Amino acid sequence: LMQPHRSYCLQMQNTVEQIAALLGCSPTSAEVASYLDTHDQLSHLREEFLFPKNAELPPSDLSLIDGSKECIYLVGNSLGLQPKMARKYLEEELDKWAKTGVHGHTEGSRPWAWAENNIEELMANVVGAKTEEVALMNGLTVNLHLLMLSFYKPTATRHKILLEDKAFPSDHYAVESQIRLRGFDPEQSMMLLSPRPGEDTLRTEDILEAIEKEGESIAVVMFSGVQYYTGQLFDMAAITEAGQRKGCYVGFDCAHAAGNAELKLHDWGVDFACWCSYKYLNSGAGGLAGAFIHEKHNHTIEPALMGWWGHDLKSRFQMNNVMQLQPGVNGFRLSNQPILLVCPLQASLEVFNRAGMAALRRKSLLLTGYLEYLIQWFYRKDPACPHKPHVRIITPSDPRQRGCQLSFCFSVPIGKVFQELEKRGVACDMREPSVLRVAPVPLYNSFSDVHRFVETLGCALNATQQ
Amino acid sequence: LMQPHRSYCLQMQNTVEQIAALLGCSPTSAEVASYLDTHDQLSHLREEFLFPKNAELPPSDLSLIDGSKECIYLVGNSLGLQPKMARKYLEEELDKWAKTGVHGHTEGSRPWAWAENNIEELMANVVGAKTEEVALMNGLTVNLHLLMLSFYKPTATRHKILLEDKAFPSDHYAVESQIRLRGFDPEQSMMLLSPRPGEDTLRTEDILEAIEKEGESIAVVMFSGVQYYTGQLFDMAAITEAGQRKGCYVGFDCAHAAGNAELKLHDWGVDFACWCSYKYLNSGAGGLAGAFIHEKHNHTIEPALMGWWGHDLKSRFQMNNVMQLQPGVNGFRLSNQPILLVCPLQASLEVFNRAGMAALRRKSLLLTGYLEYLIQWFYRKDPACPHKPHVRIITPSDPRQRGCQLSFCFSVPIGKVFQELEKRGVACDMREPSVLRVAPVPLYNSFSDVHRFVETLGCALNATQQ
Ligand SMILES: Cc1ncc(COP(=O)(O)O)c(C=O)c1O
Ligand SMILES: Cc1ncc(COP(=O)(O)O)c(C=O)c1O
Repeated sequence: LMQPHRSYCLQMQNTVEQIAALLGCSPTSAEVASYLDTHDQLSHLREEFLFPKNAELPPSDLSLIDGSKECIYLVGNSLGLQPKMARKYLEEELDKWAKTGVHGHTEGSRPWAWAENNIEELMANVVGAKTEEVALMNGLTVNLHLLMLSFYKPTATRHKILLEDKAFPSDHYAVESQIRLRGFDPEQSMMLLSPRPGEDTLRTEDILEAIEKEGESIAVVMFSGVQYYTGQLFDMAAITEAGQRKGCYVGFDCAHAAGNAELKLHDWGVDFACWCSYKYLNSGAGGLAGAFIHEKHNHTIEPALMGWWGHDLKSRFQMNNVMQLQPGVNGFRLSNQPILLVCPLQASLEVFNRAGMAALRRKSLLLTGYLEYLIQWFYRKDPACPHKPHVRIITPSDPRQRGCQLSFCFSVPIGKVFQELEKRGVACDMREPSVLRVAPVPLYNSFSDVHRFVETLGCALNATQQ
Repeated sequence: LMQPHRSYCLQMQNTVEQIAALLGCSPTSAEVASYLDTHDQLSHLREEFLFPKNAELPPSDLSLIDGSKECIYLVGNSLGLQPKMARKYLEEELDKWAKTGVHGHTEGSRPWAWAENNIEELMANVVGAKTEEVALMNGLTVNLHLLMLSFYKPTATRHKILLEDKAFPSDHYAVESQIRLRGFDPEQSMMLLSPRPGEDTLRTEDILEAIEKEGESIAVVMFSGVQYYTGQLFDMAAITEAGQRKGCYVGFDCAHAAGNAELKLHDWGVDFACWCSYKYLNSGAGGLAGAFIHEKHNHTIEPALMGWWGHDLKSRFQMNNVMQLQPGVNGFRLSNQPILLVCPLQASLEVFNRAGMAALRRKSLLLTGYLEYLIQWFYRKDPACPHKPHVRIITPSDPRQRGCQLSFCFSVPIGKVFQELEKRGVACDMREPSVLRVAPVPLYNSFSDVHRFVETLGCALNATQQ
């Protein structure tokens, strides 16, 4: 990973071409994908997930595709697939509820009264944190607010929050309302950073320079880990270091980074972070969200809002109304957490922990590199054929600056292409007017998925030309 | 319900004695319970719930009881039983997730992206609200905070929050931290109301007087609907009226009131309310909580914290970062909500809506009255036998001032009695040193449950005397 990214593209090209030479086929042949799958030491993880079949996807046109085949699911960045063990764990808890009622709070392998605590170590491993630095609770936006209420304490001279211009809407609204709540004016205090004119993504140097220049007036730097639209993976270590050098708190929304990129929230000294679990973490729609506060704040940062779940567990149920606040993020807990959301998340986190983020990331580099290679091969802008539809990848080509998602910007309107893709069993994500977001996730996607996608994209484009 | 409560006790006594006379048995005979069950027009609702068997309860001693019999479940005030349809609905959504992945957001009978909206009418009916006044989201303490952030805006002269001295811990901590967040001192601003010396519950007249006397300095009156410990049902209409006359906002934590008492949040003009759903509403541990804001505030009260779920649904996913805030409580939504929590709550709310709160309340009065009658019969303090264990009911005897729960204060230490009850298949709730909380819920408890409980209590007390 240390080589500059140009050479990474070349390296990927070399890899594919070597395999093709070995197999005696074209570099774009499906045989290359098969070969890569055969040599993928994580390929068995796909078996841990329920893969939708073409026939079941509502937009599928079964005159065009085989209904009994697995679909081309490349939208794990939006909603992850169901871990097979999710249902088993849920049924265990439904059984416990049916059979023992209230006793489930303290009995069985997932006592409801502290069930989320039992999987926080698994969660911490995925985001590079210590167990005590992580709380599973609430939804993502709720957690972002709870954290900001403690980390954003604006003063007359230091009142700004630095974030991306095109942050995810909920983050944008969260920041806006936090600024207002503290009596400041978003016009003055919301510092939105845009890419340079004509560029799609932010340059790290520009982020660092903005912090260096304006840092004295910035209370909190709040970036996403991976940008939901462009797929850009920010240099969280460098941003954290730069912000903290200027006396800012630095937090990240890791919705698109958790379970995607290799995070080291603890080692990077990130002040706070939050994430959801229904994307790469496969916990189901609206699953339990995460929150992180670095342990260095254990005795300096306190929750602005308190609830009984922030009370020390040992004496929580003595109910004497004298708060014994747990240190760090544990004190930020408010409500008891839903056992029905712990189950699917546990199922997914167990698979993550068996694989390890390092190995997943290694596969991810190859998998997304392969997608990039094929897209470039077929759809790079060709000066000789200006009317041929082409694709510009707005996600950085430097693998250190991206996770598994690539965001494609088409030279043709995307609506019809997307429709033709959906007819052919592709699940991915479209943004009008021209962006397609495609995420081969290393946990359950294969190289053949990627190959089938690119092939299907050809058919879809052809269909739109007719 | 309009007669003074003394005569309600007498009326209950008359009812039981008439039935006993009719059947030619003692008023304490199990035949009376059977008779009442036979004539209970809601008795079939029990079939909609999964009733634990004695054999499955961890503390059961099967040398004392029949393991195959249903236990005596009187702890629906803590964790409601599982509605039978919960599993079916959950499996439907697990199937949809397995088969269609991300398409579940917009497909099927519970599109995940607005699944909670589909059951908010059912919820509103249970708490006496208009659908647009109710949001299902988050946990209870989270909602309490979100509401208080908008309703508690202290000024130098009006900065107090009036609440019960022994409020549920989470509410106590929530109020405490809200006061601190606004820069005030809980010592000065937290106004805790206690019962008169020697009394167990608050007198409505004392609450109203406190508001009348101190109202000018009170920003928010925040009571529970039903007190979790004593079972007292507060006169929410009168408290609301009194508070608002003094210019206070009035809010209620309806954790123990929703699905228990007949609420008229809208008609009473309550400003805001919140509740959990895992108690009387049977949604499972940590289920989706509710929030209510009266529609009169639609254009005056705005959320302090914003998230994308508060954005108008029609344009929510255009993602242009320009907030189109929904009016009222709908603007307080932050995060997308978990489909896995919508399913069991839907299952339960459907049963509630089939029965109606008015009919449930009618049965509840009889059921809890019967429990009171039997306890008084057997365990009222008898001056002739001062050493016989006796029970004082700290819950008001006026049925207008209680829901289904009765809180019993024993003349003997409760620990051993509770243990002997649990051995005999009773699920109820104990608080050291001497209180037992017992909640026959009209939705699934029978008069025979109540009779068996009182009979079993006799055995338990005998066992502790030996
Ligand atoms: C009256 C009352 N308030 C608040 C709570 C806390 O609920 P949660 O953990 O759902 O926030 C409870 C829970 O039992 C309660 O009974
Ligand atoms: C980057 C980012 N932030 C915030 C959210 C909002 O999440 P939630 O609805 O769980 O609060 C999302 C959801 O997709 C997201 O992708």
